Amino acid sequence: MSTVVTYEGREASDAPQLAKRIIIGDPLTSQQVDEQLLPKRMALPIFASDALSSVAYAPQELLMILLIGGLAFLSFAPWVAAAVVVLLVVVVLSYRQLIKAYPSGGGDYEVASKNLGEIPGVIVAAALLVDYVLTVSVSIASGVDNIISAVPELNPARVEIAVGFVILIVIVNLRGVREASTVFAIPTYLFIGSVAVMIATGLIRTFLGDPPVASSAEFAVHAESLTQAAVILLVLRAFSSGCSALTGVEAVSNGVPAFRAPKIRNAQTTLALMGTIAALLFVGLTALALISGVHYAENPCHLIGFDCTKPQPSLMAQVAAATFGAGSIPFFIIQAATACVLLLAANTAFNGFPLLGAVLSRDGYAPKALNTRGDRLVFSNGMILLGIAAVVVLVIFQANLTTLIQLYIIGVFVSFSLGQIGMVRHWKRLLRETRHRPLDEVAAQRRSAHIGLAINTCGATLTVTVLLIVTITKFTHGAWMVFFAIPILAVLMMGIKRYYRDVEHEITIDDTTHFGSEGDVAIVLVSKLQKPVIKALDYAIAANHDKTIALHIALTPQDGEELQKLWAQHNIPVPLVIVDSPYRTFAQPVEQFIKQYRAKHGPSVVTVYLPQYIVGHWWESFLHNRRARRIANQLMLVHGVTITLVPWLLDSSELIYGRRSRPVPGQERAGRPLALYGGSTGGRRAQRPQGPPEAG
Amino acid sequence: MSTVVTYEGREASDAPQLAKRIIIGDPLTSQQVDEQLLPKRMALPIFASDALSSVAYAPQELLMILLIGGLAFLSFAPWVAAAVVVLLVVVVLSYRQLIKAYPSGGGDYEVASKNLGEIPGVIVAAALLVDYVLTVSVSIASGVDNIISAVPELNPARVEIAVGFVILIVIVNLRGVREASTVFAIPTYLFIGSVAVMIATGLIRTFLGDPPVASSAEFAVHAESLTQAAVILLVLRAFSSGCSALTGVEAVSNGVPAFRAPKIRNAQTTLALMGTIAALLFVGLTALALISGVHYAENPCHLIGFDCTKPQPSLMAQVAAATFGAGSIPFFIIQAATACVLLLAANTAFNGFPLLGAVLSRDGYAPKALNTRGDRLVFSNGMILLGIAAVVVLVIFQANLTTLIQLYIIGVFVSFSLGQIGMVRHWKRLLRETRHRPLDEVAAQRRSAHIGLAINTCGATLTVTVLLIVTITKFTHGAWMVFFAIPILAVLMMGIKRYYRDVEHEITIDDTTHFGSEGDVAIVLVSKLQKPVIKALDYAIAANHDKTIALHIALTPQDGEELQKLWAQHNIPVPLVIVDSPYRTFAQPVEQFIKQYRAKHGPSVVTVYLPQYIVGHWWESFLHNRRARRIANQLMLVHGVTITLVPWLLDSSELIYGRRSRPVPGQERAGRPLALYGGSTGGRRAQRPQGPPEAG
Repeated sequence: MSTVVTYEGREASDAPQLAKRIIIGDPLTSQQVDEQLLPKRMALPIFASDALSSVAYAPQELLMILLIGGLAFLSFAPWVAAAVVVLLVVVVLSYRQLIKAYPSGGGDYEVASKNLGEIPGVIVAAALLVDYVLTVSVSIASGVDNIISAVPELNPARVEIAVGFVILIVIVNLRGVREASTVFAIPTYLFIGSVAVMIATGLIRTFLGDPPVASSAEFAVHAESLTQAAVILLVLRAFSSGCSALTGVEAVSNGVPAFRAPKIRNAQTTLALMGTIAALLFVGLTALALISGVHYAENPCHLIGFDCTKPQPSLMAQVAAATFGAGSIPFFIIQAATACVLLLAANTAFNGFPLLGAVLSRDGYAPKALNTRGDRLVFSNGMILLGIAAVVVLVIFQANLTTLIQLYIIGVFVSFSLGQIGMVRHWKRLLRETRHRPLDEVAAQRRSAHIGLAINTCGATLTVTVLLIVTITKFTHGAWMVFFAIPILAVLMMGIKRYYRDVEHEITIDDTTHFGSEGDVAIVLVSKLQKPVIKALDYAIAANHDKTIALHIALTPQDGEELQKLWAQHNIPVPLVIVDSPYRTFAQPVEQFIKQYRAKHGPSVVTVYLPQYIVGHWWESFLHNRRARRIANQLMLVHGVTITLVPWLLDSSELIYGRRSRPVPGQERAGRPLALYGGSTGGRRAQRPQGPPEAG
Repeated sequence: MSTVVTYEGREASDAPQLAKRIIIGDPLTSQQVDEQLLPKRMALPIFASDALSSVAYAPQELLMILLIGGLAFLSFAPWVAAAVVVLLVVVVLSYRQLIKAYPSGGGDYEVASKNLGEIPGVIVAAALLVDYVLTVSVSIASGVDNIISAVPELNPARVEIAVGFVILIVIVNLRGVREASTVFAIPTYLFIGSVAVMIATGLIRTFLGDPPVASSAEFAVHAESLTQAAVILLVLRAFSSGCSALTGVEAVSNGVPAFRAPKIRNAQTTLALMGTIAALLFVGLTALALISGVHYAENPCHLIGFDCTKPQPSLMAQVAAATFGAGSIPFFIIQAATACVLLLAANTAFNGFPLLGAVLSRDGYAPKALNTRGDRLVFSNGMILLGIAAVVVLVIFQANLTTLIQLYIIGVFVSFSLGQIGMVRHWKRLLRETRHRPLDEVAAQRRSAHIGLAINTCGATLTVTVLLIVTITKFTHGAWMVFFAIPILAVLMMGIKRYYRDVEHEITIDDTTHFGSEGDVAIVLVSKLQKPVIKALDYAIAANHDKTIALHIALTPQDGEELQKLWAQHNIPVPLVIVDSPYRTFAQPVEQFIKQYRAKHGPSVVTVYLPQYIVGHWWESFLHNRRARRIANQLMLVHGVTITLVPWLLDSSELIYGRRSRPVPGQERAGRPLALYGGSTGGRRAQRPQGPPEAG
């Protein structure tokens, strides 16, 4: 007793639709999702741009913090850098395990919620959401920094440029993953290539005894005299800033579903590749910065000899200038590539955030709207949301990199830690489950579980430690905001979950659900006797209800009388009831009439017909008092009432919607004019080849 | 064949309603309008406060302008003042004629449009609207000025205070005319009384040889040396500023309908009374200011000896201080009364503007919304509109009186002039018409016409002259803005008029209008099989259409299959059609289905049933993707389709609306559970005493 039809049409139905097409391209069928999947060479730039780009600011922030203690402290740099690299390696290994165990793209969120329970899961989710926003902000801020290092004139427009880029990225992403990746592959590879070349050149020159010298090399710095405790704290702080090099590692684990089969293998390889490259670039840049004697200060005015009214050139810019000479072509290539890759890093978040949002909304922790794919198969709402959040953050913090970095990576390490702990639990459970099974069949499984356990335990310990360090060293520097944001978000998500659960419970069918409503009364609300009302009456008659009543709410007795005259004159085949409403209300009198009617004729479903204007220009709506809508909204609250909106398309609507209710002059169809209309409350009528009174 | 019922209920149906009640009071029946009418003693304060209050700034602005030319120029003051008084008298007399001829409250607008044609009428209307806004702004600015003169500490909060007062006045007025007037009677009379006493005291002291001396008396001023032309221009400018004393005279003529019978007489008397008082106060104050040697400079820093970082005390304040001593109780009484009356003056506009707005919208020059009386019989929308406009102006011009005065009274004199010219035409026509009738019966009529003609001709000549002077002297001082605003508004109104005419033409019944739509198909859109959908199905069945089809838009084939299973399992008595929509669109597939259906079964009216959630909290709407609304809006564009919204009140809606769709646990009614439901596509069913499946 059921048919299946398929709707093939993909035509842009109206003007706004069309505009949409032009900006974001043609719609895609759900099947086409597969064709949108990424080969490794494409996945790398997309998911790696974040992790790689952090190389552009991580060394700078690391050295900057050390420099607070004075030039002498730079000698700590190699050790701190080494620590960062070790951490990076461990984290990468841990995530390879995670990808193997949870390839569905839920990433840390899935791991935490599956192994540690709901609340940790939600906290991870909140942390990740916060961090996606910060990824966008930090990357773009740094990107703009590097642009300004190359073209200092742009300094005043810093914030505007940053916001502009966010908007650009949102639009690009609304076009969908595939196009995006192609746009991004080139610059990412360009970045890797050019920076590698720079590092090589720099090191070779050094061996040849002609080390590059940075513009800031001769600047001395105001050093603060520090207690031993302060020294340790400073080094730790430098380390935590350096850890920003790790951000984005998780991106791959969240993006597994976007990989081509064999998904897991490809994702793992991509991750490993990414880790290696990131580590090499990070080490190389730090080394070169130390060799060329880059002095980058938190407060440029502490640089003795530097005119701190000018923007301080980024570490990347100084190194590039030192190696290739300021203003040389390679210098500009490096700066351009850096800027690009940083902007693309921001883009990573636009792949991750909406995916996570969709997962959350699927699990009921986020509004349903985040789980509806747009015409282009991307989760448009999530992208727009992220865009707005990022713009807000950038404006509040005036796109200042150093401030933003302080808020950054807390979230990352919260999710790292919980994710790793979750993995440990996962492996333990797996071992428990397989313990009593015959060894020969589970041997391989147990072995990999043991390896996984070892790696993730190590990962968990490290990440938790780092989280503590990061928290201690950054809390007072603004990180506290993140510590507010995460719980608030988490609580919000729990609330949403509860809400959906309640609604679900309200509307699921149970044994109180039954058919069997009685009666069928139609009330046509009549203001003036004009075409829209006639149309409503006509449709009501066609719908052939048990009883059809025309109801007029008379604000003054005169209106009522006039209408009665017209009614008789046109002898309209529907009884007219006039209700005086001295208080000039519309809905209440109707409600009262319904009550009285039911009292007399017993319970019944009431269908209220309301003519509704549809206009072509937005401004027209100001000229019609949207009474119909208002009445509808009020009557929908009345027990057992449904609202039937009978649209009347004004001629202007033809502009946008291509049709109108009034027959185009000359195209009127044959038909008895109203005045001649006989009567009969519309019983079954012989099928005449004639539609409703409209122009097609 | 038609009944008349009356709706008596006035209960506040829901929470927002209730809040509204508390702020603006109980609703009133249209009959109660009469009881709201004003006796003279009430009308005077309401309509006169504007004209009288202008006394508070007119002398100040007059002397201020003269002072630009130096102290010597003050000798011009008496003559200028005299000219203003003469003008005032003439205008008052002219308006008494206008009231007699056009008592309907249309004022200048009606006169101009009736006698000079549409465009002049619209221009007058535009001019008046602009001026109402400025009346509010100027009065409030001046009021705040006087408050600050008494309490200089408030100076920094000038704009905030001004805006606050606007909001206050809007609320008071939304409560309706009557309450308003009582609030206003006292201070207006207090103002008249106290200022009169002050003037008397001042003059008596002068005769007793102890003239009051103003605080600014000893300040010399930087005088600019002027050419003879400049001198004349300056005097004329002083005159035009003095003319601000005339503003508000028209208020009475626009408010005639609000008077008690005999309306015309009462209005005329009120007008005359008002004119006299205004003239006396104006002359008295100017005299006293000159006697006590008030030096009020446009730029306080031109006052030699005055610390121009402090706010300059208003003329009123200086005179009061000089007469009674600064800080004395009478001084504060005067300042308080002045401030109050100025705020009440702003209120005049809140009586005039909405009335004019309503008249305009009745004539089709303004949106319909301006002609719907609120619960309290006042035209709420107009008041809110005026409030917003005034706030904008006050913020833009930082509540600076001297700047605002420059824009002021242009509008007044535009309408004055056109109104007077219109009256001249009116009398001429009346004389023409009565010329050939037997003299004895039209003698009285002709005599009064002759008098009117004389008065209004004189009035017209004067007002036109003044309009020219005002324009010449003020144009470069900001008045040009008004000269932009008025035509723009006028064009806008003409446009609105044309729009309404077109729509009217579109929807009036003609011989293309007829009944006779065929067919009656109901389509119930089914997403998941949940209570709201069941309810929709149930109502569709109850409505007993010729054909009822359940339609499911399947984004993935799986959804469809699952639903089909459930459908069979619950054996729902409606055929289910599943349409695959690979592009995840909803409306288009439905549209296509309808087309195909019609192609097969011939034309027919299609009723689409859409379940619609109704929530209790504003934020809940973010958690439901308003798909129903979106689909509805798109399907309403489809030929011959009506939308039936079947509301489902979530439990939360009980908070606000006092009911919900889900039966309250324990209150379920007896009824066959869904699963047991038999079939029969809902033919006539025996009346069981049972309503739709809802809790009452």
